[in-house]
Amino acid sequence: MAWESEGGGRRGRRDGLREGRRESRRGGRQAETRDRPARDIDYRHLHNPFPPMRVYSDDQVAHIHDTALRVLEELGMKVLLPKAREFFKAAGAEVDESSAMVRIDRALVAEALRTAPSEIPVIAGTPERSYTLGGDRVVFGSVAGAPHASDTDRGKRPGTLSDFRDLTRLCQSFDVIHFLGPVVEPQDIDTATRHLETGRIALFDSDKLAFVFARGTPQARDCFEMIKLARGLPNDEALRRAVYCQTVINTNSPLTLDSPMANGIIDFAEMGQLLIITPFCLSGAMAPITISGALTQQHAEALAAITLSQIVRPGSPVMYGSFSSNVDMKSGSPAFGTPEHVKTSFGAGQLARHIDLPWRSAAGTASNIADAQATYETSASLWAAVMSGSDLILHGAGWLEGGLTASYEKFIIDIEMLQGFAEMFAPVPASEDDLGFSAMAEVGPGGHYFAAEHTMSRYQTAFYEPVVSDWRNFGQWTEAGAPTATERANTIWKRVLEEFEPPTLDIARKDAVNDFVERRIREGGALPES
Amino acid sequence: MAWESEGGGRRGRRDGLREGRRESRRGGRQAETRDRPARDIDYRHLHNPFPPMRVYSDDQVAHIHDTALRVLEELGMKVLLPKAREFFKAAGAEVDESSAMVRIDRALVAEALRTAPSEIPVIAGTPERSYTLGGDRVVFGSVAGAPHASDTDRGKRPGTLSDFRDLTRLCQSFDVIHFLGPVVEPQDIDTATRHLETGRIALFDSDKLAFVFARGTPQARDCFEMIKLARGLPNDEALRRAVYCQTVINTNSPLTLDSPMANGIIDFAEMGQLLIITPFCLSGAMAPITISGALTQQHAEALAAITLSQIVRPGSPVMYGSFSSNVDMKSGSPAFGTPEHVKTSFGAGQLARHIDLPWRSAAGTASNIADAQATYETSASLWAAVMSGSDLILHGAGWLEGGLTASYEKFIIDIEMLQGFAEMFAPVPASEDDLGFSAMAEVGPGGHYFAAEHTMSRYQTAFYEPVVSDWRNFGQWTEAGAPTATERANTIWKRVLEEFEPPTLDIARKDAVNDFVERRIREGGALPES
Repeated sequence: MAWESEGGGRRGRRDGLREGRRESRRGGRQAETRDRPARDIDYRHLHNPFPPMRVYSDDQVAHIHDTALRVLEELGMKVLLPKAREFFKAAGAEVDESSAMVRIDRALVAEALRTAPSEIPVIAGTPERSYTLGGDRVVFGSVAGAPHASDTDRGKRPGTLSDFRDLTRLCQSFDVIHFLGPVVEPQDIDTATRHLETGRIALFDSDKLAFVFARGTPQARDCFEMIKLARGLPNDEALRRAVYCQTVINTNSPLTLDSPMANGIIDFAEMGQLLIITPFCLSGAMAPITISGALTQQHAEALAAITLSQIVRPGSPVMYGSFSSNVDMKSGSPAFGTPEHVKTSFGAGQLARHIDLPWRSAAGTASNIADAQATYETSASLWAAVMSGSDLILHGAGWLEGGLTASYEKFIIDIEMLQGFAEMFAPVPASEDDLGFSAMAEVGPGGHYFAAEHTMSRYQTAFYEPVVSDWRNFGQWTEAGAPTATERANTIWKRVLEEFEPPTLDIARKDAVNDFVERRIREGGALPES
Repeated sequence: MAWESEGGGRRGRRDGLREGRRESRRGGRQAETRDRPARDIDYRHLHNPFPPMRVYSDDQVAHIHDTALRVLEELGMKVLLPKAREFFKAAGAEVDESSAMVRIDRALVAEALRTAPSEIPVIAGTPERSYTLGGDRVVFGSVAGAPHASDTDRGKRPGTLSDFRDLTRLCQSFDVIHFLGPVVEPQDIDTATRHLETGRIALFDSDKLAFVFARGTPQARDCFEMIKLARGLPNDEALRRAVYCQTVINTNSPLTLDSPMANGIIDFAEMGQLLIITPFCLSGAMAPITISGALTQQHAEALAAITLSQIVRPGSPVMYGSFSSNVDMKSGSPAFGTPEHVKTSFGAGQLARHIDLPWRSAAGTASNIADAQATYETSASLWAAVMSGSDLILHGAGWLEGGLTASYEKFIIDIEMLQGFAEMFAPVPASEDDLGFSAMAEVGPGGHYFAAEHTMSRYQTAFYEPVVSDWRNFGQWTEAGAPTATERANTIWKRVLEEFEPPTLDIARKDAVNDFVERRIREGGALPES
């Protein structure tokens, strides 16, 4: 008699498929393993074959776009940096110096959208890490900018340079993380030299696309110098020819662009480096309580910043970002991975496609610990990001507590989800042989496929092998100490860090970066600007 | 200066929105709460507005369908029940009595697909619980058929009638669960009277669509009698006029239909009750190791069973079910919520639409505990079910350990995810007022929306209020004892059970059911058939 829960009872059934202990793949970290063929999925280059979801009709999208243009024309954007206001003024925007308000005509926005590129090639430390943003490509990034770090051994504490190094190494160790973020704030390092110390780690311990904070021109210039030295670029002109790093620009919602962010737009546009413009519109707090209102405001703010980037340097690479969710109206606390967050991502993707820019979304959770809540909120926001056609998904691994904490265990758990998407994107082979008629003829009613030729020729590479998931039956799992996923993740990140090997970097370039960093530290570095 | 992780720092910001303590809605359990307006989303009737995902081209779908027909024509299906073979033979199928093999011509399958209905109305205990399967409608069900129950107080143990009652009451308590399943096996009740005891609880403690196990004609007849008494149906003819209960038919993969399941098809088709035909094809074990091969076999097996139902009684209600995933090739353990499971669901949806039948999918996890793994596996399989256009999603709440255990805490955690989908399905209002231009004008740059009129008129019903999610900041959460989601879920199911009130059932009908059950128990009940 068959009933579907009986499947569980079949656990432990074996058919001698495993000859000797195979090394775990540790989730596709390496392209090959020691004693079996590699699976044919390249986590470094992902294409999302699924159509993006919609929550608006085309007319509604046009209405939101038009209303955002009205916001910029009639209400305007407060721009705190005089130099940025000068750029706007020179381009024809109406600037009120006493209030710092800038009113932007829709023709100026349209011109900016005409010059902003729809596809953006980026250059990483090694060619196989480079990619082009736009189209059906998807790239994932880790937690970024968390002031705290946490793991289950040491608990929650202020981030340190050691945490920055370890989390950067975790990012480097998994192919499904495509670019670096500023994983955690190393609060043990002086703010004047923090960008030098973290920049060096990012360039030495990873060959993935680098991140540079927009914290004032002097720090940005330092970071650009380090990137030029590490990538062998002789001068600014060479840097300007391609994207070698990226930054995130958050508007100060509602409708304000503060000075470091405006400065960042100018610095990065002038140097041709990638700007990821991301209003942070929490419905009910810094944005209207309606999803459509939050998106309208987000769109207006993003358009203002995108326009500035194109005024500074037409054609400079810029992404449309959304990190809009809602707050708990009882407490004002931000929430992530909510149904509102999901629908906002779907709508934001429609707006990004409306203006034909590559777009960035994000995962998130408000949970304080790497538990079931952290997982369902992160999962929902990741699914929303993927199903809304995002080109770049930030905070995809390790983001906890509304972004206040970078969690080592959650990083590993989230990697499992990201690799699941990478696998989901791969085509399903459907040749005559894949349909398995001959295998069914061989096995027959009531038999099993463990020893069938169709199985034997495929079993080593047929399925994704998980990083964290434990599929042992209850008895085996209990005997092994009944470890939770979070406990297993703790073991995994430690092993990955133990086995870490940095990518190859030319020794002369390495020396040049070291010399530069040491000199700038002796000179006192550069304070962040506010 | 703005950076997106700062959002977390805004926690605890309040603006006096909450006047007095509001009762938690406990996740939409009730249509209204004591002191504030209800949100305008009816969890009892869900329509999925999103297009289903595809992994195959139309040609590939046709190829799989054609190959499945070849399997039935050339290889055949083993049908263990003589009476079922007689039905097939009378309809023109080629039957070999010595091997019990039935070879089914594609014309016979085509005729069955012509008579099987595309939409299936079902009648629950109260009109607002009734619905029609098919189209864009989605219904969710809970864990079903688990031999064990578990919660964090009592641990894992064999299921009891008390567990059956409590889990049925949890199903009744949340509108997002649309029909009943046989939540857990009450192993403390004799198998000859178990159907009577559980059937009575299902009819007394819930007004949702009932489930009846296909465990032989005598038990099914008993259950049909109880349903007739509870629903006020005078005779079999009245029962036959509409769907008042459903059963799941699992084929015995590969390519076998065992006797109780074949008997179930005959009993339910003759009585016009709903058959959910669900092959249980684990790639690499009971089905070919390829996704396309597992789906081809699933399709062949489902078509055979669907055909039998239509031979017995043309037009009898039948669903196309898929519960195909993969096994761990190292141990043979079944896995759920894997990338392969996700893609199999997408493909299965395409096959269901190809034959124009309402279709059933399922969530699942192999985790042994309600942890992060249980959550990401369940979330992935739920998202796959939803994004593949499922009409009915089984095992959506509380399914643990590959279906061997019904978990109280996981039930509550999963309810949060199901309610998230219900919210995601609701349209995003996009009127002029929703876009919030006037609110932005009112608040201005640098302000906040907490006290804006746009906010004040909406805040009570703007957002989904979670069941389990804890959005307090780290300090508040730590002071409260740092409860995990699983620990909070433990508190929640207890409170829901404490507050449980059964639905109204006519006292005469109730007495009639009681009299029937007591009489049949005195008579010794009916043993399940195998």
